[in-house]
Amino acid sequence: MRIDALTTPALLVEASGLEANLRTMSDALPERRLRPHVKAHKCTALARRQAALGHHAFTCATIAEMEGMARAGLGEDLLLANEVVDASRLGALAREGTRVTLAVDSPATVDVAARAGVPEVLIDVNVGLPRCGCRPEDAGRLADRARASGLTVRGVMGYEGHVVGLEDRATREQMLEESMALLGRAHDDVGGAVVSAGGTGTYDLNGWATEIQAGSYALMDTAYAKLGLPFVQALSVLATVVSVSERWSVADCGLKALGMDHGNPTVADSDVWFCSDEHLTFAPAHRVRVGDRVRVLPAHVDPTVAYHRYLYLVDGDDVLDRWDVDLRGW
Amino acid sequence: MRIDALTTPALLVEASGLEANLRTMSDALPERRLRPHVKAHKCTALARRQAALGHHAFTCATIAEMEGMARAGLGEDLLLANEVVDASRLGALAREGTRVTLAVDSPATVDVAARAGVPEVLIDVNVGLPRCGCRPEDAGRLADRARASGLTVRGVMGYEGHVVGLEDRATREQMLEESMALLGRAHDDVGGAVVSAGGTGTYDLNGWATEIQAGSYALMDTAYAKLGLPFVQALSVLATVVSVSERWSVADCGLKALGMDHGNPTVADSDVWFCSDEHLTFAPAHRVRVGDRVRVLPAHVDPTVAYHRYLYLVDGDDVLDRWDVDLRGW
Repeated sequence: MRIDALTTPALLVEASGLEANLRTMSDALPERRLRPHVKAHKCTALARRQAALGHHAFTCATIAEMEGMARAGLGEDLLLANEVVDASRLGALAREGTRVTLAVDSPATVDVAARAGVPEVLIDVNVGLPRCGCRPEDAGRLADRARASGLTVRGVMGYEGHVVGLEDRATREQMLEESMALLGRAHDDVGGAVVSAGGTGTYDLNGWATEIQAGSYALMDTAYAKLGLPFVQALSVLATVVSVSERWSVADCGLKALGMDHGNPTVADSDVWFCSDEHLTFAPAHRVRVGDRVRVLPAHVDPTVAYHRYLYLVDGDDVLDRWDVDLRGW
Repeated sequence: MRIDALTTPALLVEASGLEANLRTMSDALPERRLRPHVKAHKCTALARRQAALGHHAFTCATIAEMEGMARAGLGEDLLLANEVVDASRLGALAREGTRVTLAVDSPATVDVAARAGVPEVLIDVNVGLPRCGCRPEDAGRLADRARASGLTVRGVMGYEGHVVGLEDRATREQMLEESMALLGRAHDDVGGAVVSAGGTGTYDLNGWATEIQAGSYALMDTAYAKLGLPFVQALSVLATVVSVSERWSVADCGLKALGMDHGNPTVADSDVWFCSDEHLTFAPAHRVRVGDRVRVLPAHVDPTVAYHRYLYLVDGDDVLDRWDVDLRGW
């Protein structure tokens, strides 16, 4: 099958780029040094490729991702790197034989885990990003409470989300060190074998963590492309030109096919003007015709993938496979 | 069932607000004066409510929306207000008895319609928004070509998308008049009974169009709320507070539950800081607790709805019904 036959917009993954990205990361962070984050691709077929390279522990962002990974036989060691207030579905997963670890950052979320029968937790520590995570000085006390509730505390996690996207590498390095000093202090109080942190932007800098939660590296986007990392942009959205006028053209790929929080997508040799619900208005350097196909490079991989039902694995214009984006929803 | 039992994030539609919006619009634009746009809600159960108020002609943005509406028995008069380069699925719909009208704006798209057996078209005219639509002076020639190809030309359409969101009503009115002058000129050349245009922001100003393609009015968002229209914000995303710290709190509703092209969502009595994939970081005026529910008001309704599988119709904290968002995808 050729990509010409696909209904557009369609999410394409260039097989050679994906394989190169997976191998580059595996070489840098073999086996348990990497805990791939599935939120970036939401696709168990892709996770299976990561597992085939030796990574059998995964990171998830939602309960639905945990359930989907378990259903796909990839439940050897799943971390939900988020707090939840109802862990009953996770308790059920654990009882069915999946290894379930849950992030906790408050007495309330510790109690949620204990009540639901989630056996293992990580103490989630705030390392500078204004989001979840307890204060470093509270981590030990929280671990004590967890252990007193019968939970196994595997260690700590702390996501330096305010650092991973910084374009200047030296700044990234310095701020990472500060973040990991906070996480280290918490780890001293908490104990346990696991220090989970990191992302695609810090994968080769974060020597403090025992495991890196990178996800975007597999598919990449234009935001991460600015960092000069050794990963190629394997993801694009195939669109069809439906209208051509003198100064601009229009393709059938818009706000319902692209995560827009990082801004407009990119089209090669073109100036992207704006997106509407089902349209991309752009000015191509070379005139296009109605019916032409263009590849649109998303600015942010994760919310883009979440709009699509399928990922098409391609080799240039040949479609090799169709993968379900089966970890969507909640 | 109470909303406390819903898995979050969950898309809520306040029944009283929805009903008020539908009635207000129906009173202003009865029956065929309104051709509701389904792209804003992507939900045939909601479209059925619009039909019950006398609107039996609908506007769609995708072929999948056309097919879904036909399948739901709402195919009395469906307009695809977009150009396509493969209309074979629309031809099939027409042969099965659905009334299918397709927008065309070029010789190529006229030929697409004719070849596929789509019986009726509207000449799509550019009225100022840099998107689809032919030049007004080309509309007559295009209509001739369509008729010569055996197509019935029902009239013209022209979407004043650059006008509908302008906050100043006088400016909106003036620019609308300019746009509709262009459409009127095209209509003189094209003929036909239909002049299709308009949106929620111009529904009560556009006296030139024979039918208004409004969609957002049913659910509304914070962008349209700035215009002082008589429609209430019926749509929200229910989220759960999962983490509380001194200066901010975090709810489980993020970039995969919200269209972000119009910026951050709004939470009552709160300052929204930013969204991550599955998180909303916000500073509430009054302290919240882990487990509390908050209602998040999206900035843009259409790309928000497209992320969700269900709409929950609610009356305050009571869940009245669950509607499939069954018109998603392509």
